[in-house]
Amino acid sequence: MKARVTVTLKPGVLDPQGAAVARALGALGFDGVGDVRQGKLIEIDLAPGPDPEGTVRAMCEQLLANTVIETYAIEILP
Amino acid sequence: MKARVTVTLKPGVLDPQGAAVARALGALGFDGVGDVRQGKLIEIDLAPGPDPEGTVRAMCEQLLANTVIETYAIEILP
Repeated sequence: MKARVTVTLKPGVLDPQGAAVARALGALGFDGVGDVRQGKLIEIDLAPGPDPEGTVRAMCEQLLANTVIETYAIEILP
Repeated sequence: MKARVTVTLKPGVLDPQGAAVARALGALGFDGVGDVRQGKLIEIDLAPGPDPEGTVRAMCEQLLANTVIETYAIEILP
């Protein structure tokens, strides 16, 4: 099975990478671009197990996300 | 409106970041972890316009994705 984890900065945390993208889009002539936030997408191939979501949550807490400034969302795909 | 863009490496392109995550998960004791791929998630606040998906596709082609080695998916949220 496959797990898809999205890790994003919490609201209010400064996102210089997103700000740089927003500025670059403006410089390229794209109008109407407001806030841009950049996060991570992690796709994990997992061996089938009893509680895949719990396993992936533990991975996020221990390695994938810095829970002080980031939140994560987990999606389990068959 | 909001656009969510996911940028991932094309299959077959070496992903050292994903490989490092897979190794680290193994070192932490998570068994059964196979391939790990890491991509980018970009959330863009957009002013309403006639063709948001076309606009965001142009952004991807010009800035957000390196289409030689990366693919992108666009999701328009209300």
